[in-house]
Amino acid sequence: MRTHYCGDLRSEHIGQTVNLCGWVDRRRDHGGVIFIDLRDRSGVVQIVSDPERTASSYDNADRLRNEYVVNIVGRVSQRPPESLNPKLPTGEVEIYAERIEVLNAVQRQLPFQVSSSDMDTVKEELRLKYRYLDLRRERMAQNLQLRSRLIRTIRRYLEDEAAFMEVETPILTKSTPEGARDYLVPSRVNPGEWFALPQSPQIFKQLLMVAGCDRYYQIARCFRDEDLRADRQPEFTQLDMEMSFLTQEEVLDLNENLVCHLFKTLKGLELPRPFPRITYADSLARYGTDRPDTRYGLELVEVSDVLADSGFKVFSRAVAEGGVIKILPVPEGNDKISNVRIKPGARGDLHQEATGAGAGGLAYIRVRENFELDTIGAIKDNLTADQIQEVVQRTGAQPGWLLLFGAGPAAVVNKALDRVRQVLGRELGLIPPDVFNLVWVTDFPMFEWNGDEKRWEALHHPFTAPLPEDRHDLPNARAQAYDLVLNGYEVGGGSLRNYQREIQAEVFGTIGLSPEEAEEKFGFLLEALDYGAPPHGGIAYGIDRLAMLLAGEESIRDTIAFPKTQQARCLLTNAPAQADAKQLKELQVASTFKPKVKTEE
Amino acid sequence: MRTHYCGDLRSEHIGQTVNLCGWVDRRRDHGGVIFIDLRDRSGVVQIVSDPERTASSYDNADRLRNEYVVNIVGRVSQRPPESLNPKLPTGEVEIYAERIEVLNAVQRQLPFQVSSSDMDTVKEELRLKYRYLDLRRERMAQNLQLRSRLIRTIRRYLEDEAAFMEVETPILTKSTPEGARDYLVPSRVNPGEWFALPQSPQIFKQLLMVAGCDRYYQIARCFRDEDLRADRQPEFTQLDMEMSFLTQEEVLDLNENLVCHLFKTLKGLELPRPFPRITYADSLARYGTDRPDTRYGLELVEVSDVLADSGFKVFSRAVAEGGVIKILPVPEGNDKISNVRIKPGARGDLHQEATGAGAGGLAYIRVRENFELDTIGAIKDNLTADQIQEVVQRTGAQPGWLLLFGAGPAAVVNKALDRVRQVLGRELGLIPPDVFNLVWVTDFPMFEWNGDEKRWEALHHPFTAPLPEDRHDLPNARAQAYDLVLNGYEVGGGSLRNYQREIQAEVFGTIGLSPEEAEEKFGFLLEALDYGAPPHGGIAYGIDRLAMLLAGEESIRDTIAFPKTQQARCLLTNAPAQADAKQLKELQVASTFKPKVKTEE
Repeated sequence: MRTHYCGDLRSEHIGQTVNLCGWVDRRRDHGGVIFIDLRDRSGVVQIVSDPERTASSYDNADRLRNEYVVNIVGRVSQRPPESLNPKLPTGEVEIYAERIEVLNAVQRQLPFQVSSSDMDTVKEELRLKYRYLDLRRERMAQNLQLRSRLIRTIRRYLEDEAAFMEVETPILTKSTPEGARDYLVPSRVNPGEWFALPQSPQIFKQLLMVAGCDRYYQIARCFRDEDLRADRQPEFTQLDMEMSFLTQEEVLDLNENLVCHLFKTLKGLELPRPFPRITYADSLARYGTDRPDTRYGLELVEVSDVLADSGFKVFSRAVAEGGVIKILPVPEGNDKISNVRIKPGARGDLHQEATGAGAGGLAYIRVRENFELDTIGAIKDNLTADQIQEVVQRTGAQPGWLLLFGAGPAAVVNKALDRVRQVLGRELGLIPPDVFNLVWVTDFPMFEWNGDEKRWEALHHPFTAPLPEDRHDLPNARAQAYDLVLNGYEVGGGSLRNYQREIQAEVFGTIGLSPEEAEEKFGFLLEALDYGAPPHGGIAYGIDRLAMLLAGEESIRDTIAFPKTQQARCLLTNAPAQADAKQLKELQVASTFKPKVKTEE
Repeated sequence: MRTHYCGDLRSEHIGQTVNLCGWVDRRRDHGGVIFIDLRDRSGVVQIVSDPERTASSYDNADRLRNEYVVNIVGRVSQRPPESLNPKLPTGEVEIYAERIEVLNAVQRQLPFQVSSSDMDTVKEELRLKYRYLDLRRERMAQNLQLRSRLIRTIRRYLEDEAAFMEVETPILTKSTPEGARDYLVPSRVNPGEWFALPQSPQIFKQLLMVAGCDRYYQIARCFRDEDLRADRQPEFTQLDMEMSFLTQEEVLDLNENLVCHLFKTLKGLELPRPFPRITYADSLARYGTDRPDTRYGLELVEVSDVLADSGFKVFSRAVAEGGVIKILPVPEGNDKISNVRIKPGARGDLHQEATGAGAGGLAYIRVRENFELDTIGAIKDNLTADQIQEVVQRTGAQPGWLLLFGAGPAAVVNKALDRVRQVLGRELGLIPPDVFNLVWVTDFPMFEWNGDEKRWEALHHPFTAPLPEDRHDLPNARAQAYDLVLNGYEVGGGSLRNYQREIQAEVFGTIGLSPEEAEEKFGFLLEALDYGAPPHGGIAYGIDRLAMLLAGEESIRDTIAFPKTQQARCLLTNAPAQADAKQLKELQVASTFKPKVKTEE
């Protein structure tokens, strides 16, 4: 029935009779003449019903209310000069409605206004419960379209420009090494046994390389039964890729081509090439994190050597115990950051950031006029002039600067100063708008020490290959691994893989798997490496986060059609829910959860 | 490092030095000169290592074995005239190897030969266990590429030619009406509660229409914990589509455009338009099934009226009890089908087909010269001359024909004769090769009667809309539903949906849901219909089956990279498996399955 989309009508259509379908975005009665903004996926166009000129449609126009679904036939007309709307793509025309048919009415009060209310003023719970109304709003509709365009652009680039083939890998599969957060699925026809949902298609994509697939990609759904925290979803979407016979250099180059193409196509931006690179060690040294936001400075400066034997015990003890002393230098910090915020107490927000990361507190020095120092007595009294001079020189501090100190184990100091740095970066307006800073972080360690379990753990995953030159000392080796960081968010991460059984077995040994355990968990992978596995490597991108950053949103939930809440619930369908007893019986499973009985008070 | 794919080399490359990577498909030693077929995803090219001409590569060439992974640098040369191979795309050239590097060796005996053995001679269990070797074979590699091309072609058509938008819908969701075969997933962070994996994105795609998305598609993973039977997978892939504001006619037209485009692009075939249509009632009458294979005749003929009061009790009783009498007429059946096959007994395969479908047996009449009849006494003695004449006339039987009878409840007769018809269609060579017959089956009943539960059940699903003219008698109404059948396989199925709350509620009532139950299960959908739902409808195609038919395979497992067996197991990873006790404890679930203890005999 429909002949046009609303948003496509232009002055070239004037004189044509068109048939439109859509929703009443707004209805206005101007002295008996009724104006309707008719909305569909493409946009909005103005409909007019005038008791004089279009009596045939007037009665129906009169009973329309917001969000009614209608079919309208009418003639496209030039708007009179005084009602031209240059802000609207269809603002030169209006449709005189000859026929208005109500296809469906709205039967109850809308929980929120679709067209007029600002998205930010409606509670997210309400938006998620009535997601089908929320998605009618322009901003959300555009987010979904952007996400769809993002995925389409990725697919076409990989298929047309880089010879990738899409392959679907199983969702009902086997529990993996990171198994603790796997979702499990009981099998009815194999009672007592469980599938696991994949946290990533890692092993299957490697097997596809062994199968000679050469270049694989997939927009893959992945699952993780995460502890509840911000910005995570139980299911998420990855661009998953794997390639054979490429060096790390070639992998990074191919990925820069892809990412540049995405930004060009979706944002009209030419990103500078090659992307900057920073090693993991450097990134931690300078930013305290392996996800550096390089849109602003505020780089950390290590002064462990300078202050190792200072009289200030917090400093000297940190170094004596194998820790570090680092400084976050803040230009103009004296004017902009009061002592109250640095010290313990209700208003000490920066102090709380640091202690929240495990630090004892935030020592500080303010550099005043003539390089006089303003700090607590314990520091002032215990630092030598030489030490002070070296600190000032190394940080490049000028009068007006605030130096914030972290001292203790490197991991704690880095985490604390990273958090404070991020708060200050935003607060001090150091972040330029509309800038997309991409950086490769490379040379990750293969392993990190798990003090609780007294064993090495794979930093990425145990299929990652070590740098050849580090192979003699595997526990301390660096990996052929790389993350792509965008404005402080990890958007992609990957590595070259172990394709020779011998190295793979050594890596399993390093993380504490006995040959028998390795065989039981990964026997099929080890065996595959015996049958002619090619050198290969890959990467995975978080599509939800990438879409969020491209859309300029703050939450990944705003780029997912039907997201879960931070409590891993769907407010629309009310999943998860209690299961039918009959169904559980058929599956031969039971919940062992005992709800806490409320005692009467 | 690589400069070319093996299969791309042609005479235009002669004289160039190329760098190739791949697998040793075969290695032959011809009097000291070694020939290697080097294989990668693109195909095979011949490598030569000659102790005279390319001494530098000879030692490594000599130690190569099948499926070694190698990197080869060499010069492309013209093959001598006597060794040109016109069957091979690269058959005009060969590469004199200057350098051969073994990237990975094969460490143990291959479970089967990759290049030379015929796929059909290797047991499927072995192929699935070593799927990464199985996928290296040309036929399987081509199947995966075809599937990938199929999906790519679908996407691009829908996006570029029909304004569809891809939207991802949740995989962790809520149990649906067909819930009995849902996979359930316990939630760790919401203990005692379960997600369900979707059998289709049905409700979400309808909500996307309510959201104004207008045209949605998704290549969607779906899940069904099926009873074990042939040609089903626990997870399968659907092309899932939904459209707003289209009539059924427009939906079918759009889908014919899509399907014709697929066959044109992937098979070079122009399908005749419009596709034939048959109503559900007609299809059952003529073929005994709603999935008619129209590549051959052998249409059924009903003779209930003719034989209702014949003296042969099997016939008259069938009609008296509300059943039917139908004939499958088989031209040349007298020569080709012996009585032994029709009668009970070990060699009565056609009899077994019929009884396997619930029939009591297969009555028959053979039409001999001069229209004399050859049959059992009980029929011959009890049919009048008029009855016989009418039967012969209605079936168009000629001397030499065999008439096979079914008598009893219509469902049983149809099922039995459909099975026999399919066997004979294949056996009698009636199926033309390389023909793709598409037919729309329309006007399905809304409901079918479930005799066990004494209630109406939705034939498709309860969101299907009735034909407007049948609305006054909903239990007996026909639906605005349509299936697309290809060579006897249902490849797609869909319907227009109920978009007005009132009708949807009536349908729920018809299938026996009380208003309270309907509210509990589908309250969110009913509520959505109150807020301005557009008229909408959709369809879903089985991608696995479509790929199978396009590839000319007999099993959907041959078009899935990592399929499960018919026992719903993955032989490669050995999923499903027993779960870790610690993990189950964390999830607060337990298996209640008690394995049968074997008693000693």
